[in-house]
Amino acid sequence: MIASRHTSSLANGLLLTDLYQLNMVQAYLDAGMTDRAVFEFFVRDLPGPRNFMLAAGLEQALAQLERVRLNEDELAWLRDSGRFNSTFMDYMADLRFDGEVHAMPEGTAVFPNEPVLRVSAPLPVAQLLETRLINLLHTSMVVASKAARMTLAAPGKNLVDFGLRRAHGAEAGLLGARASYIAGFNGTATVPAQPLWGIPITGTMAHSFIEAHTDEEQAFLDFARSRPNETVFLIDTYDTEAAAKKVVRIAPTLAAEGIKVHGVRIDSGDLNALSHSVRRILDDGGLSDVPIIASGGLDEWRLRDCVDDEVPIDGFGIGTALTTSEDAPALNCAYKLQEYQGHLKRKLSEGKETWPGRKQVWRDYDASGVMQADILGFEDEDMPGTPLLQPVMRDGAVLEGTTDLEAARERAARELAALPPRLQELEPADPYPVRVSERLQAEAERLAHALRGDDGAS
Amino acid sequence: MIASRHTSSLANGLLLTDLYQLNMVQAYLDAGMTDRAVFEFFVRDLPGPRNFMLAAGLEQALAQLERVRLNEDELAWLRDSGRFNSTFMDYMADLRFDGEVHAMPEGTAVFPNEPVLRVSAPLPVAQLLETRLINLLHTSMVVASKAARMTLAAPGKNLVDFGLRRAHGAEAGLLGARASYIAGFNGTATVPAQPLWGIPITGTMAHSFIEAHTDEEQAFLDFARSRPNETVFLIDTYDTEAAAKKVVRIAPTLAAEGIKVHGVRIDSGDLNALSHSVRRILDDGGLSDVPIIASGGLDEWRLRDCVDDEVPIDGFGIGTALTTSEDAPALNCAYKLQEYQGHLKRKLSEGKETWPGRKQVWRDYDASGVMQADILGFEDEDMPGTPLLQPVMRDGAVLEGTTDLEAARERAARELAALPPRLQELEPADPYPVRVSERLQAEAERLAHALRGDDGAS
Repeated sequence: MIASRHTSSLANGLLLTDLYQLNMVQAYLDAGMTDRAVFEFFVRDLPGPRNFMLAAGLEQALAQLERVRLNEDELAWLRDSGRFNSTFMDYMADLRFDGEVHAMPEGTAVFPNEPVLRVSAPLPVAQLLETRLINLLHTSMVVASKAARMTLAAPGKNLVDFGLRRAHGAEAGLLGARASYIAGFNGTATVPAQPLWGIPITGTMAHSFIEAHTDEEQAFLDFARSRPNETVFLIDTYDTEAAAKKVVRIAPTLAAEGIKVHGVRIDSGDLNALSHSVRRILDDGGLSDVPIIASGGLDEWRLRDCVDDEVPIDGFGIGTALTTSEDAPALNCAYKLQEYQGHLKRKLSEGKETWPGRKQVWRDYDASGVMQADILGFEDEDMPGTPLLQPVMRDGAVLEGTTDLEAARERAARELAALPPRLQELEPADPYPVRVSERLQAEAERLAHALRGDDGAS
Repeated sequence: MIASRHTSSLANGLLLTDLYQLNMVQAYLDAGMTDRAVFEFFVRDLPGPRNFMLAAGLEQALAQLERVRLNEDELAWLRDSGRFNSTFMDYMADLRFDGEVHAMPEGTAVFPNEPVLRVSAPLPVAQLLETRLINLLHTSMVVASKAARMTLAAPGKNLVDFGLRRAHGAEAGLLGARASYIAGFNGTATVPAQPLWGIPITGTMAHSFIEAHTDEEQAFLDFARSRPNETVFLIDTYDTEAAAKKVVRIAPTLAAEGIKVHGVRIDSGDLNALSHSVRRILDDGGLSDVPIIASGGLDEWRLRDCVDDEVPIDGFGIGTALTTSEDAPALNCAYKLQEYQGHLKRKLSEGKETWPGRKQVWRDYDASGVMQADILGFEDEDMPGTPLLQPVMRDGAVLEGTTDLEAARERAARELAALPPRLQELEPADPYPVRVSERLQAEAERLAHALRGDDGAS
């Protein structure tokens, strides 16, 4: 991805972390602190106008855990850095992940402070994984949560991810295609999403294809004859209505050659006005079954406007706003120590207090299947509702059925439909109720008191 | 990075593109359109309150061009997809990039509509590269342009990139470390940035390290003894002032062991109030030379407030706002056809009109070295000022000296210092003047007329 083969072998594995993780691993080893630790990943609050988030990225997180081992280049770099001692080098050379992981399945609706993933493993390895686990889960959840708003804003429309070019790097583009598919998109323009995950890919033409030709109509004909199954003509390069008329004019010629027009795409201008005039031109020209696709600077608000205005657009290609989650590109998320050697742990930093211990989330639905409220409590509590965290990895092995993409997509569709109606809106609504169990509240309070008392004003 | 070794070999190369690029390559080949084309990458406008952008990502863009060849897995996938004919398959099997590239060196200040990179190559290959070139240049320029605002807001402060965990994926984190270093950051926490690019890396400790211990003071001692050269203590886990007093208390013990305290870090709370009280505690305890590092939710506005308020903070670790460019995570950028077979080309789409032809940017400075104005014109025009686009690749080979990271960082420092003072502010200022040459205006006009006339209302 980056420079030479040698250096790139350092860029994608366990060394893709913050230096402080390596420092802490060394310090844990020197202090003999290698017992079991429990960390949980969660999001502290909802960014921008979000009313919920979607869990996503679990497949990548688990793949990362399965690949916990350093290659020769990584070990050589660590040794040559002169930063670490032989205890560290021996530990790192033998490093494997043999821990346990619980997680919410991908596609689950998530609310603040609810653990999405829990890792239980020896302290140094669970610590070392922090940076990359956050990086992976964050990337997928940011896009899935944004995409879900688009799905809700334009029900029944054909939504396609066009966002690779503006995604932040290769991995963001790939994970964005996958995350948006989970959230209900129909496909993506990003080619590797098909071989990697079986996601439908679609593609039309760029303005450059039209411009490279001296004649727009000839460009359409050339394209149609070369790509007879993908004849979606881009019609806004020079004059959108004139181009729509050209499509009408060449349609009989193409039909005589057995080629059907699969659509037209408008990428600029006043979509409302243009789509109506283009629809009229197509209808008058006998092409009433040819769909209109729109793209260019779309987000969930513009999708909703199109739907509210009953604009005759059948599909939307959505790029930048989707893959960068442009209005809220980051989640305030964390992966925090909750337990070490069986003792509850928490952080009291102002505004960043954590709920200690191994937790579970129970979700309550009403008779018609609408979510009512969640309860956050200790894993071993007995609470009403459906427990959301499931075991997904045991002794370092991924459990079967935990990373089925189609199942995740179906789950997301069910979750979106089960959201209380106010949370399905784009505007920020009254928050979904997440109650904290009495025992968890009491233990957290007791712990805060003990920590401030023992460690505090001394 | 993703799934198995087999599928991941499809995810990082030439197939990491939009499907429409492959469709157009096929259609270009079928129409015999393989002559030389010229594409330019540029940014249409300044997002958010940005007053300028910084060129960055050239090293990655050129590396991408040098690696233009498909591996066996990619060829097999293309063949097995059944989408393409044998002309396409033969062309792709032999594909190499033997074109020419001109670019602004990394670290150059960039304004709207100025070409940052120009590719001249056979149409199908120049087309195919569009998606990934935009993806790479965009990612680096977004972060470099954000980081430059932070450098300007906190001159002389020690700025460190803490943003890998919230970056969108692996590549965004890595490129973010590099881009912020170009823009004047002093280092990063991201480990591979050191072996990949020689960027200084720094790391302290996380809250989990403190929490895993039963006693905060013991945690500090353990860490110091294990990492004697990296003793920056995180002091906000429970009670910031109490922790600062512990640092004072253990300092003599550590000094007796030959260990120096290198700093304390505050990651939450009211930085202004806390840094003053912590400074007092350290000073009173004889630790007046121990710097205070702040982190947690920082951006350029908070940096400026700290500087304006003369808050006693010596260094800043900046994460989310930096690597996601949180207030403006995307640039409205494009890679557009400007010329084919020697003929000027342009797009007239509403709001997205392009300037045709191979262009150059000339920059004028006043006697004291401050930028006065730029001129955008055809490459072969003779204009006053310094031409900014340089040849960087010829016959597919990168020219020497085009990707020197330290040179890019020095250039960025010079450029930031040479910006008109109003553009160095965080608030949006009167735009920097970019004049379009008369010939370019006239040719663009002539072309628009011809295109609308020939192709338009017919």
